[in-house]
Amino acid sequence: MESQPEKLGRPRVAALDEVLGVPFRVLDDGLVRVVDYMGDDAAIVQAARVSYGAGTKAVSDDRGLIRYLVQHRHTTPLEMCELKLHVRVPMDAWRQWIRHRTASTNEVSSRYSVVTDAAQRTSPDAWRLQSDDNKQGSCGLADASLGETLSAAERELQQHARRVYEERLATGIAREQARKDLPLSTYTEAYWKVDLHNLLHFLALRMDPHAQQEIRAYATVIGQQIVARWVPLAWEAFEDFRLGAVTHSRLEQAVLAAVGGGHRDAALEAARAAGWLKPAKAGGLARNRERAECEQKLRALNLEIPWQ
Amino acid sequence: MESQPEKLGRPRVAALDEVLGVPFRVLDDGLVRVVDYMGDDAAIVQAARVSYGAGTKAVSDDRGLIRYLVQHRHTTPLEMCELKLHVRVPMDAWRQWIRHRTASTNEVSSRYSVVTDAAQRTSPDAWRLQSDDNKQGSCGLADASLGETLSAAERELQQHARRVYEERLATGIAREQARKDLPLSTYTEAYWKVDLHNLLHFLALRMDPHAQQEIRAYATVIGQQIVARWVPLAWEAFEDFRLGAVTHSRLEQAVLAAVGGGHRDAALEAARAAGWLKPAKAGGLARNRERAECEQKLRALNLEIPWQ
Amino acid sequence: MESQPEKLGRPRVAALDEVLGVPFRVLDDGLVRVVDYMGDDAAIVQAARVSYGAGTKAVSDDRGLIRYLVQHRHTTPLEMCELKLHVRVPMDAWRQWIRHRTASTNEVSSRYSVVTDAAQRTSPDAWRLQSDDNKQGSCGLADASLGETLSAAERELQQHARRVYEERLATGIAREQARKDLPLSTYTEAYWKVDLHNLLHFLALRMDPHAQQEIRAYATVIGQQIVARWVPLAWEAFEDFRLGAVTHSRLEQAVLAAVGGGHRDAALEAARAAGWLKPAKAGGLARNRERAECEQKLRALNLEIPWQ
Amino acid sequence: MESQPEKLGRPRVAALDEVLGVPFRVLDDGLVRVVDYMGDDAAIVQAARVSYGAGTKAVSDDRGLIRYLVQHRHTTPLEMCELKLHVRVPMDAWRQWIRHRTASTNEVSSRYSVVTDAAQRTSPDAWRLQSDDNKQGSCGLADASLGETLSAAERELQQHARRVYEERLATGIAREQARKDLPLSTYTEAYWKVDLHNLLHFLALRMDPHAQQEIRAYATVIGQQIVARWVPLAWEAFEDFRLGAVTHSRLEQAVLAAVGGGHRDAALEAARAAGWLKPAKAGGLARNRERAECEQKLRALNLEIPWQ
Repeated sequence: MESQPEKLGRPRVAALDEVLGVPFRVLDDGLVRVVDYMGDDAAIVQAARVSYGAGTKAVSDDRGLIRYLVQHRHTTPLEMCELKLHVRVPMDAWRQWIRHRTASTNEVSSRYSVVTDAAQRTSPDAWRLQSDDNKQGSCGLADASLGETLSAAERELQQHARRVYEERLATGIAREQARKDLPLSTYTEAYWKVDLHNLLHFLALRMDPHAQQEIRAYATVIGQQIVARWVPLAWEAFEDFRLGAVTHSRLEQAVLAAVGGGHRDAALEAARAAGWLKPAKAGGLARNRERAECEQKLRALNLEIPWQ
Repeated sequence: MESQPEKLGRPRVAALDEVLGVPFRVLDDGLVRVVDYMGDDAAIVQAARVSYGAGTKAVSDDRGLIRYLVQHRHTTPLEMCELKLHVRVPMDAWRQWIRHRTASTNEVSSRYSVVTDAAQRTSPDAWRLQSDDNKQGSCGLADASLGETLSAAERELQQHARRVYEERLATGIAREQARKDLPLSTYTEAYWKVDLHNLLHFLALRMDPHAQQEIRAYATVIGQQIVARWVPLAWEAFEDFRLGAVTHSRLEQAVLAAVGGGHRDAALEAARAAGWLKPAKAGGLARNRERAECEQKLRALNLEIPWQ
Repeated sequence: MESQPEKLGRPRVAALDEVLGVPFRVLDDGLVRVVDYMGDDAAIVQAARVSYGAGTKAVSDDRGLIRYLVQHRHTTPLEMCELKLHVRVPMDAWRQWIRHRTASTNEVSSRYSVVTDAAQRTSPDAWRLQSDDNKQGSCGLADASLGETLSAAERELQQHARRVYEERLATGIAREQARKDLPLSTYTEAYWKVDLHNLLHFLALRMDPHAQQEIRAYATVIGQQIVARWVPLAWEAFEDFRLGAVTHSRLEQAVLAAVGGGHRDAALEAARAAGWLKPAKAGGLARNRERAECEQKLRALNLEIPWQ
Repeated sequence: MESQPEKLGRPRVAALDEVLGVPFRVLDDGLVRVVDYMGDDAAIVQAARVSYGAGTKAVSDDRGLIRYLVQHRHTTPLEMCELKLHVRVPMDAWRQWIRHRTASTNEVSSRYSVVTDAAQRTSPDAWRLQSDDNKQGSCGLADASLGETLSAAERELQQHARRVYEERLATGIAREQARKDLPLSTYTEAYWKVDLHNLLHFLALRMDPHAQQEIRAYATVIGQQIVARWVPLAWEAFEDFRLGAVTHSRLEQAVLAAVGGGHRDAALEAARAAGWLKPAKAGGLARNRERAECEQKLRALNLEIPWQ
């Protein structure tokens, strides 16, 4: 390992240096910007070649090696890269963000400092309706007139909350207690530092269509504007092997393989054994979550659904 | 290790079993209760004797060994005990709580479920005034009439926020978005699971007088009502060697030792070299945080402060 | 959450209690046994229903919910279960084991205690040959006479190392230094405590055919003998959705879908664009790792390989 | 936060850049060198001022703020700095090193690569004798003639182990199995990446006189040669408030304060109540670990030991 030309200095990524410190705007008043970083695609390769030895040179090039690492979840070389961001986020989204434990955080303290007067506002055309089939999601938008009503009510509530906060401060109440009824939509700021492996895990969960729209907006900016610039090979591999990947369970493989081989009866047999083909009272098949997911995968491969 | 009588079954702690599932009330509407636990004082000893071998038998007894571990921060045996709590906490305190990353958490989701109508209320006699010398603390209470005014305003704001929340739900807005302006005082609930080492670290920080009163109330209940019952030897050691301990820096030791030995000049010399004795413009000594802390420690040991 | 019948006491798993403290033998002289545990399948469900609310009751039953959690990697409810093992492992395998950072460990200290006289021995029929195409793997076995030679040489070396160790101790050398030339095959012992989520991650990596045979032997015992008894629903889901699952990259999906739909040309086009179809100098296609993996997946689904 | 001049580029530390990539030699054939780093003293201050707000400007300067953070264990701003090292270490010391879980590691794989022929050798004048009163320590050195004998035996054993390793490889045995009897003294290499908070924790434990001499040699080089160059203010604070600090338990404070105030009887009473003054069978006081530590602390403060 000693002969490596590490004396040449710390790795720099020109494409990322260009946006260093530059705020990317998110939501109505949020931001993300890069404060510092460590490592690059080459640092991943360097660490991987240490772990996996000279043998890895058989993998023709750096791109191939990084794709191999990401595909097979050999994640420790990705930990060798580190990113530090400054973010400005509504507390509601921050509550989800901070659930990711493998990162370092310094958040503005509202015990020490007066909270700046900024709450995330929803424009009339951005009120989302409750999804029926996804208990935790939204689906479609409220119509214009309802939107106007809701945004006006929101505005009034946020102003009320701010007025109460400021009155408390004005009468000498401690900041740590005065803040207690601020709305979750209040913006907070933080430094957030994370290694690339854990960042990609965060992005896989938070760029997912099931993630709440607000945090997804941040994750998408971090991924597409920052990570893509910083470690383009790792980002490309991540898009192919994680974001865009699909996983088949053992059972699904059995069904898909049977259909693929033209063995419709075997496919039906496997599905039946899995309890997927129980009849509904009203006729047809009873709802079954796993069967529905399998149907989606059959369709995606242009294979016939044997029980239809 | 094989001869240990582990076949006798899982360790149980009768004193903790008595309160299993029993809610301890905290604040106006919060709670903490034990859902499950693993290990006891004996499990700590068992793990320590494995790590430190037969030699530890020289430490006369279990109590002595546990005290030794806690004093010298040999913390891995404490990780062998695990506690699972159900807590109900205002989101504002939960924001601080969740900053402790080495724990497992399942919080009620307000994307899936309607938030229950409960916000932490401050009674008229509980409004704390901003501390002057501690930027992040409080000091003293607001007087009765101010308290009445603030509590009435709080009530009104919380009702307003709830009304807006319910109107959004009634018009079909997604739960994940409807909640965005709920106040930070809203109660949330969670399972929280943590090992004893990390729990004691949490308690050391959150039972501290500098911790905010609300989270300190939870930490105190967990410590005194739960941990004290569960692992009484570890708890006693923690009170002696962590909660009640004081640490002297290298510099403080030099000053204290000089004073202890009656060498006033040497003490002054050490303090001067540290930059503690600079004159104030108005005469006397300039304010100096480190000198002030040293004075406190001299006083605690009944030693004279040489520069006064 | 308060109405749940948690007062009934800590969950117990009869099937696991039966083997509590009972050593499962691994390799020639190793063992694994359960010292304690916390939680069960029902504890996973309980935590999930808290997080995901009443809505999850739509998932018909506990089994369905656990399968859903494992399939979609909603892993925090799995963290609510904890397992404590006593293991006896060759240091060489322990070196790999201990790389998993999210666990608690108390290992026997060879600074405090004399190392017991036990090194893992390889029987003449168990010497594995270096794999040619897998730089880090083995493939096939040495023949009987070579095996005899190697085992005899191993025996001699281990005895030599032990003799040197004991001579050092006999002449008063410190244990911490005397041990320095013990072979990596020396057995060590430890308590190892881990939550179910992190345990399953460990098992996914270490039960994998690419894991080294020695640690795979331990992982297999832990999975099949212990986890399967402890949390049978989670274990079944893990076998279906992790151990037995296969993942297709974005590119592979494009190729598979084209073949599945009978669009051979589109499949060739996608493969060509990916750089999979470069000609070898000697004729035919050049070796390509990603293409080879895709061929395997086509075969598994009984689909034709379009470029053959 | 937006007005901070972060556009000026990534922080650099000239004193550390000078030794970037330069190996510091440790033991007979080990090394440590800096591969990359992120952050500096100013980055700690920047993060602290975010968390603790404008209020922290009251702390006169950066040095004072960093001292405050280190003294009061406000550790999150220290996590904002990151260091990546390349190390070459005997496996025996690496076994201890790797127990620190909050770091990222890529170790050379001896499954992929042939282990280089290098084992740590002990020179004749470096064999340490077992300590009598410290079960895990050493005390004094073996005499010259014993040292010669031991070093010769060590040499012979290491050569024997190497010969066996090479014979296995020569007969086609898999690298992953061939290595199984290599001595613990064999050198391994790794990249090791850690944030400053966790690095200082590592150094506090491994620079301690109770740490084994080999790992202490590495920790000392990392601390004094690297961290001291990288973040000189944090390093100075660490030396004062951690390395050189002493902690008094609640009980010790009671005794010390009584002695400090001239209340010998109160001191004896406190010691007696603690069980420190039990008579030995042979007369005098029975051995008591906690009393002995308290005596040491009294002595260090030039205070009289009341029970002598």
